[in-house]
Amino acid sequence: MKIIVVGASGDIGRVVCEELGSRHDIIRAGRTQGDVLVNMSDRTSVEKMYAEVGDVDAVISTAGDVHFGPLEDFTSDTFMIGLNGKVMGQVNLVLAGMARISEGGSFTLTSGVLDRDPIRMGAGAAAANGALGGFVTGAAIEMPRGQRINVVSPGLLEVSAPRYGQWFPGHEPVSSKRVGLAYAKSVEGAITGQVIVVE
Amino acid sequence: MKIIVVGASGDIGRVVCEELGSRHDIIRAGRTQGDVLVNMSDRTSVEKMYAEVGDVDAVISTAGDVHFGPLEDFTSDTFMIGLNGKVMGQVNLVLAGMARISEGGSFTLTSGVLDRDPIRMGAGAAAANGALGGFVTGAAIEMPRGQRINVVSPGLLEVSAPRYGQWFPGHEPVSSKRVGLAYAKSVEGAITGQVIVVE
Ligand SMILES: NC(=O)c1ccc[n+]([C@@H]2O[C@H](COP(=O)([O-])OP(=O)(O)OC[C@H]3O[C@@H](n4cnc5c(N)ncnc54)[C@H](OP(=O)(O)O)[C@@H]3O)[C@@H](O)[C@H]2O)c1
Ligand SMILES: NC(=O)c1ccc[n+]([C@@H]2O[C@H](COP(=O)([O-])OP(=O)(O)OC[C@H]3O[C@@H](n4cnc5c(N)ncnc54)[C@H](OP(=O)(O)O)[C@@H]3O)[C@@H](O)[C@H]2O)c1
Repeated sequence: MKIIVVGASGDIGRVVCEELGSRHDIIRAGRTQGDVLVNMSDRTSVEKMYAEVGDVDAVISTAGDVHFGPLEDFTSDTFMIGLNGKVMGQVNLVLAGMARISEGGSFTLTSGVLDRDPIRMGAGAAAANGALGGFVTGAAIEMPRGQRINVVSPGLLEVSAPRYGQWFPGHEPVSSKRVGLAYAKSVEGAITGQVIVVE
Repeated sequence: MKIIVVGASGDIGRVVCEELGSRHDIIRAGRTQGDVLVNMSDRTSVEKMYAEVGDVDAVISTAGDVHFGPLEDFTSDTFMIGLNGKVMGQVNLVLAGMARISEGGSFTLTSGVLDRDPIRMGAGAAAANGALGGFVTGAAIEMPRGQRINVVSPGLLEVSAPRYGQWFPGHEPVSSKRVGLAYAKSVEGAITGQVIVVE
């Protein structure tokens, strides 16, 4: 398959490219680096990416900004970073991509653990993750031409624990291998409308 | 208790006022009618409402716009209506209210069934509902001074079925009595961080 990975240079993106790269043709996409540049929060930029890349079978997103901070310090603007970035950005990849990817193709988005196992300062991320779970449930029943859509919801990755572990007391980090398998299940398997939990 | 109900004039708002009105002092709030006017999507308007109303023990929201339409027709703008209106609007009531409501007070938001039992044209609502579930999970562990937060997630109401029923094939409408009880459980009970499902 020909697969676009948006966020390929990130911690999860690298894991996904490692898992799927030997079996598929991967197009690496990102805001500042990759085979093609895209800002997924901007629908026009997303349309441009699809036009550049041409025929595609699967789209994976491992990208999405959210703001972390104490609940009492959130403003509307900082709270909206997650809804605009992580949610609308990934939804844009689907809305603009449905008409372009192949029959039976798939979209695989990324959320995270914080809407089921919360941490301090994570309310914005929890909302964004919940939104993505709701979106794939709602969208799956309306996908055209046999297309599928899922979201992978990983716990903190082992590779990311040095950067973020101090904010996740007691969370058991998940291995790159298991995270990669979740994306393989979504792309190469047949399920749709699922939140694929990796814990 | 003194309780603000934002969206008091709506289908769910009237049900809530009916259930809680005999036992509590209700302040009816809404965009165009009520004891106090507020546009919850505008944080400044929300701050003004709290200043006008003074001491409050509980805040209930039964308000929130979302756009309904075929998945393929969603634009970023129509998709954002739910994230800005239903999600950010209700979150604004919490962010601006935490410092103002009483010790042990509560927030009760409203989502809906579409993130677990989807319908055609409901992907925007499904995302908004999921975001609210994630938000209360994340926010509950950071509420100050013993405050609580829950979201009620009702199925289609019997009273709303004449307006919306045709888009909910096979959904069994829920009685006003049972919907009212869910809000009573959140406000008068002790649970927090819960999605209270009414089906
Ligand atoms: N790492 C974890 O343990 C973990 C666990 C659960 C969930 N998550 C979630 O998974 C997502 C990725 O996490 P990560 O740790 O892999 O992040 P990361 O290492 O910071 O990488 C993010 C990647 O996404 C790209 N990106 C960000 N915004 C973009 C946009 N608007 N358009 C296009 N590309 C964009 C970045 O590209 P540029 O650098 O070029 O901007 C980068 O390649 C985040 O939403 C995070 O919350 C992470
Ligand atoms: N009805 C159902 O069967 C059902 C079932 C599950 C979930 N829900 C959800 O529950 C919520 C309420 O539904 P409903 O049927 O009761 O709606 P509704 O009858 O249309 O009433 C909505 C109420 O909210 C107020 N409102 C809307 N936006 C507002 C804002 N930005 N600031 C302040 N007030 C605002 C409206 O005031 P004005 O009229 O003055 O603008 C009105 O009082 C919606 O999010 C809906 O998706 C409804």
